[in-house]
Amino acid sequence: MQTLHVDLGERSYPIYIGADLLGQAQLLAPHIVGRQVAVVTNETIAPLYLERLLASLAGYNVVSIVLPDGEAHKNWETLQLIFDGLLGARHDRRTTVIALGGGVIGDMAGFAAACYQRGVNFIQIPTTLLSQVDSSVGGKTGINHPLGKNMVGAFYQPQAVLIDTSSLVTLPPRELSAGLAEVIKYGLICDAQFLDWLETNMPALRSLDQTALTLAIERSCAAKARVVGADEREAGVRATLNLGHTFGHAIETHMGYGVWLHGEAVAAGTVMALEMSCRLGWISQADRDRGIRLFQSAGLPVVPPAEMTPEQFLEHMAVDKKVLDGQLRLVLLRQMGEAVVTADYPREILDATLRTDYRAQVDLLTHQ
Amino acid sequence: MQTLHVDLGERSYPIYIGADLLGQAQLLAPHIVGRQVAVVTNETIAPLYLERLLASLAGYNVVSIVLPDGEAHKNWETLQLIFDGLLGARHDRRTTVIALGGGVIGDMAGFAAACYQRGVNFIQIPTTLLSQVDSSVGGKTGINHPLGKNMVGAFYQPQAVLIDTSSLVTLPPRELSAGLAEVIKYGLICDAQFLDWLETNMPALRSLDQTALTLAIERSCAAKARVVGADEREAGVRATLNLGHTFGHAIETHMGYGVWLHGEAVAAGTVMALEMSCRLGWISQADRDRGIRLFQSAGLPVVPPAEMTPEQFLEHMAVDKKVLDGQLRLVLLRQMGEAVVTADYPREILDATLRTDYRAQVDLLTHQ
Repeated sequence: MQTLHVDLGERSYPIYIGADLLGQAQLLAPHIVGRQVAVVTNETIAPLYLERLLASLAGYNVVSIVLPDGEAHKNWETLQLIFDGLLGARHDRRTTVIALGGGVIGDMAGFAAACYQRGVNFIQIPTTLLSQVDSSVGGKTGINHPLGKNMVGAFYQPQAVLIDTSSLVTLPPRELSAGLAEVIKYGLICDAQFLDWLETNMPALRSLDQTALTLAIERSCAAKARVVGADEREAGVRATLNLGHTFGHAIETHMGYGVWLHGEAVAAGTVMALEMSCRLGWISQADRDRGIRLFQSAGLPVVPPAEMTPEQFLEHMAVDKKVLDGQLRLVLLRQMGEAVVTADYPREILDATLRTDYRAQVDLLTHQ
Repeated sequence: MQTLHVDLGERSYPIYIGADLLGQAQLLAPHIVGRQVAVVTNETIAPLYLERLLASLAGYNVVSIVLPDGEAHKNWETLQLIFDGLLGARHDRRTTVIALGGGVIGDMAGFAAACYQRGVNFIQIPTTLLSQVDSSVGGKTGINHPLGKNMVGAFYQPQAVLIDTSSLVTLPPRELSAGLAEVIKYGLICDAQFLDWLETNMPALRSLDQTALTLAIERSCAAKARVVGADEREAGVRATLNLGHTFGHAIETHMGYGVWLHGEAVAAGTVMALEMSCRLGWISQADRDRGIRLFQSAGLPVVPPAEMTPEQFLEHMAVDKKVLDGQLRLVLLRQMGEAVVTADYPREILDATLRTDYRAQVDLLTHQ
């Protein structure tokens, strides 16, 4: 087991990473203040892992709250089920909310913990690779509004995060790949050495080698923790974590949520960010192609949808949350392992990036 | 105009107090970062003060969100109207939410500001005496849940509070008295000199003398700011602000919300806390009677409902939010101007307090 400390002053917390952690009661106990615990999970995860977690919570007054699965339920009506469960069980402000599941469960349980009686303790047990390396670090919680994703929420830090790498065994391979997109992202934005390691170890990760997974998750969380520690409320450098996300969100929105997984859209979107960084002369074509090959080796798409026009990209990107006073800021690579957030680029470079024939480029690469 | 600074480290903010502040644009401007402002108010307040506020916001991109009036609407459905208004007007994370109204508007607008895009700027303009001296200081925001009051919310501090004492001219006299209950409370819990001042100046306050009101509000807010500054998240001394509230909540719940105003229930509840402190030998009978006379001079009830039995009080008090691990903690007076929170009292003293014939006591006092 590895332990990583997220340093946020009085809101600091540990992340435990390793195989078979779910049954280890002694990891949870120090982070539960009272005798009340509420486990929030969903219909898919509950049959797989709820019983094992409840066994490590013997002796506590536990209420289990099982929500419907999926992003479509990340709304107020479902959040209300958490409050109903807490109040129905008469949990007071010393209760501890535990999120057992992927990003949607973590976001909703975290937001419920932030709001219930104006804030109670919170522990994250993320069960997907994406939530393990992304949403479990950084304190972003929230729900969707009919007019926008994640529009209502809170910055709220957990008492601890417990990442059991064994839970990835039940994860569909496509979702494992989607999580790897974010892992690769950390290498690209701030850890060039990690890119070397990933090139060597991608097969081990995809075959669920527990040691390789532990290392990759720890290094990803450490990268995110460094960035978040420097900029908890996203005033500056934290935005580099969105490499590939502005292009990627345009793909997700255009295709309809759920058609492309978030990580898949981020992979194709990051290829576009690599292309643009290359056109700006910041990284070489060899660097760009190296990035493309890494995403391919993780089983991810590296070509945006053929039917999307440059105009459609621009339209979706104009409503991005990173637009401030009308300026579209993009996350680009100054070099491999160093991202910048900038609105200072020639407009024609963006246009050329959107017009690039990615399919042809990748075909060329495959036949080299 | 008086300016009071609430000292909460990086979350510090000023409270401006005085007559005719609503039209003074230069007080608001330094606390609005971007060009977007959302004014949240209700159907009662909007016709009285919205136009004057909007005149001081000329030049900003302003959206007005007018909610239905009353505690019955302090729920998610009404909160959603604020998010709808913000998203409909495409306000981004640099918007500033201004609450114009009483405690319900302040609680809901503040909670919306805490959650919208995970937190935007917030300014309070409380228009009732109760919200001016109580809910506008301390950062408590939230909504009710069908199973409990204020069960969902956040601690969220405003950028500034603007208290226009002229707005009390349109406040019904019964609500002015209810606000005075909280003003008297500050004297009882932490400011014995203020009690002397209140005994002299109660007639001036009830006739809306602007100088007296400014002084009383400033002194009340200063008292609350001191207590909140020492204990922002209610780990200890902040609970003394609930003098009379545990008995008072029992009255409110038993009678049905809205039958007794909150301040009226607090007045009668505080008389019970005075009685219990007297029975414990901590304050004299003369002190107790002095407190009773002060509430009477403010036009407040000093006798709990005749039909409420000791058993009914105990039943309602057992579900109080201050119950921790089954112990009922009460706020009592160690002496006039010094409150303590304690669960360490003989049970028979509480029982005797609940059995006291307050009507007879007050009749005696009236005929002295």
